[in-house]
Amino acid sequence: MASVPAVPASEASAPSLKISTKDSPSNGVAECIPSFKAADAVIELAPTRKPKPDLTNLAFGSVFTDHMLTIEWTSAGGWQAPQICPFNNLSMHPACSALHYAIQLFEGMKAYRGPGGVVQLFRPMLNMKRMLRSAQRACLPSFDEAELLECIRRLVEVDQDWVPQSDSASLYIRPTFLGTEPSLGVKRPSCALLYVILSPVGSYFSTGAKPVSLWADSKYIRAWRGGTGDCKMGGNYGASIYAQYEAVDYGCQQVLWLYGEDHQITEVGTMNLFLYWINENGEEELATPPLDGIILPGITRQSILELTRKWGVFKVSERHLTMADLQCALKENRVKEMFGSGTACVVSPVDRVLYQGENLNIPCLGDFPPLASRLLKELSDIQYGRTPSDWVFPV
Amino acid sequence: MASVPAVPASEASAPSLKISTKDSPSNGVAECIPSFKAADAVIELAPTRKPKPDLTNLAFGSVFTDHMLTIEWTSAGGWQAPQICPFNNLSMHPACSALHYAIQLFEGMKAYRGPGGVVQLFRPMLNMKRMLRSAQRACLPSFDEAELLECIRRLVEVDQDWVPQSDSASLYIRPTFLGTEPSLGVKRPSCALLYVILSPVGSYFSTGAKPVSLWADSKYIRAWRGGTGDCKMGGNYGASIYAQYEAVDYGCQQVLWLYGEDHQITEVGTMNLFLYWINENGEEELATPPLDGIILPGITRQSILELTRKWGVFKVSERHLTMADLQCALKENRVKEMFGSGTACVVSPVDRVLYQGENLNIPCLGDFPPLASRLLKELSDIQYGRTPSDWVFPV
Repeated sequence: MASVPAVPASEASAPSLKISTKDSPSNGVAECIPSFKAADAVIELAPTRKPKPDLTNLAFGSVFTDHMLTIEWTSAGGWQAPQICPFNNLSMHPACSALHYAIQLFEGMKAYRGPGGVVQLFRPMLNMKRMLRSAQRACLPSFDEAELLECIRRLVEVDQDWVPQSDSASLYIRPTFLGTEPSLGVKRPSCALLYVILSPVGSYFSTGAKPVSLWADSKYIRAWRGGTGDCKMGGNYGASIYAQYEAVDYGCQQVLWLYGEDHQITEVGTMNLFLYWINENGEEELATPPLDGIILPGITRQSILELTRKWGVFKVSERHLTMADLQCALKENRVKEMFGSGTACVVSPVDRVLYQGENLNIPCLGDFPPLASRLLKELSDIQYGRTPSDWVFPV
Repeated sequence: MASVPAVPASEASAPSLKISTKDSPSNGVAECIPSFKAADAVIELAPTRKPKPDLTNLAFGSVFTDHMLTIEWTSAGGWQAPQICPFNNLSMHPACSALHYAIQLFEGMKAYRGPGGVVQLFRPMLNMKRMLRSAQRACLPSFDEAELLECIRRLVEVDQDWVPQSDSASLYIRPTFLGTEPSLGVKRPSCALLYVILSPVGSYFSTGAKPVSLWADSKYIRAWRGGTGDCKMGGNYGASIYAQYEAVDYGCQQVLWLYGEDHQITEVGTMNLFLYWINENGEEELATPPLDGIILPGITRQSILELTRKWGVFKVSERHLTMADLQCALKENRVKEMFGSGTACVVSPVDRVLYQGENLNIPCLGDFPPLASRLLKELSDIQYGRTPSDWVFPV
């Protein structure tokens, strides 16, 4: 730890912007939740600042900013005051329950540089709410989502120079929440650590938009009903990597995750999945699997659904889709586009699915087909402040 | 870190016992695996020793010995020399892949105090082999199991005073293996940390043998085909805790994990499950679910199967068992005993299953029925050296 004297957050050079109450819990509810308070935050500034990296060809999430946010909790003492401190290694007890039993979860969100240099987040309260749901599933303590968002806002503010001056790069924000129980019983942890780190990331499509190829096989199943696939818990991800490398062995880039006897298509890699097609009833439809317990409720997924429903130009459905549906539609030339959605890429078109030894070619006009292009543009325009929207949250 | 000068392991007071080659990979195979070598181990002794705790009523895994084993790996440099050093916190990068994506696994085994004060392990090579399998599933690097066992033997030897002078307490050994990649991409880690910590534990049944009650509900599913239920990965455990507390809310002590439409009974809490009954064909049978991908291949499970097959007094089966099978057998008075098996307890009898609102009472004569009693005695006698066996491995 650097030995810079700690100063209360209120004394740091904070702008007067207050947390928006939009999407936040009602005050009555918020007051009932035992939580840390952003107003108690203590900021310890780093004595020196790291040079900013060249974001071209930088591996995702490999460089971090000067500061981090940490908030500790114990069952005996409750939440402690949030700390914004120099980015530093964590000191973990070797029996820590996050390391043995994966009592851990995370979120992924971004800060974007808007016109005139303003910094803004995209629907961050949705991340806060999802994080709280993951925490409940992981038996980690609750907190007030609005207070966490305000802490994150302050952290981004402290490291605002790290938000790239770019209309395609951004500052990735990684909230993380760990059980830090220092004993080996499999149980609800008696202590926990919530922390947030920041990493500048380049444009996802910096080397040109390339559609991805998918390996669809029921050998590995990402998530199942009664499991944790609808929460952003670490265990969902570590278990997926082996399949990812098998996909590469088959000459594909990512896994198309199947489920059930009927080979439902559920997610792709670490993204939600959309199929834009003429459905079995002859209707033009944008379809994505429903939130039935095995699908991560993605913020980009929700935004695409809301945006396209507002357009009102085709049917928008949350529905089951099977490989047989896809095969049949391809044979009958009813598939228009298929793409993944996520915070990193916004949308990522698919041009090929390898399934049961057969390559299924997905239409992918000019590498970035029309609907995917329109969604990328409309969502990016909102995120980077080129289109005014109440989906953005100013830092 | 204590500043005690490091000395090569070969200079530490090691007895001359060499690693047994029993159950170890053939030399030809072992030589091909890039691995750390126990002979390279460096031992740094703790400057002071902690007092030994009273094991009565001590929470499982809450006190640790004076030393730990750590072995680091990087994709560029391979395995480093094993270090036996004072028990200490770990310094982890906040982006560490074990903390975000649960790239983590562990093992559980014990050192027992035998007659004349000797210290011995129980079938440790089975733990080493299972750990290697878990590592492959988690995309962590391979190692030579015999070399790891020898490192663990040396660690236990250094802390041998911590092995309780008791015929029911023991020293719990927790090998742990983490991805320590310091960046946020979901990928095979480029660095890893294998470590082992030791914790003295009291007798499992110190407050008297009490049978357990189980909550059987398909709301939560522990593991599924295509997942990681057959590996000892952290994600399997963190996801189970929420269900465990729901079981307690229903007045039960542990979860009976069901699977599939037909409600197969798979595991209980963190244990394998055995049913001793007259089966549907009128045969006296000890049955446990088969290793079909969702069952952890327990060392105690395997030992019970091997032991009872050697007895030859009833049929021993690895087979599917459903709740309907159990209900029908209970109605017809065909159930003799039901128990969990694991390293902590050896066996743990079950006396009640709450299923679909109905309490199913399992015969449980005198709290510890005859077969469970015999297994507990025979296995404990081997573990504590009261019965000679080639299942034990001297430290």
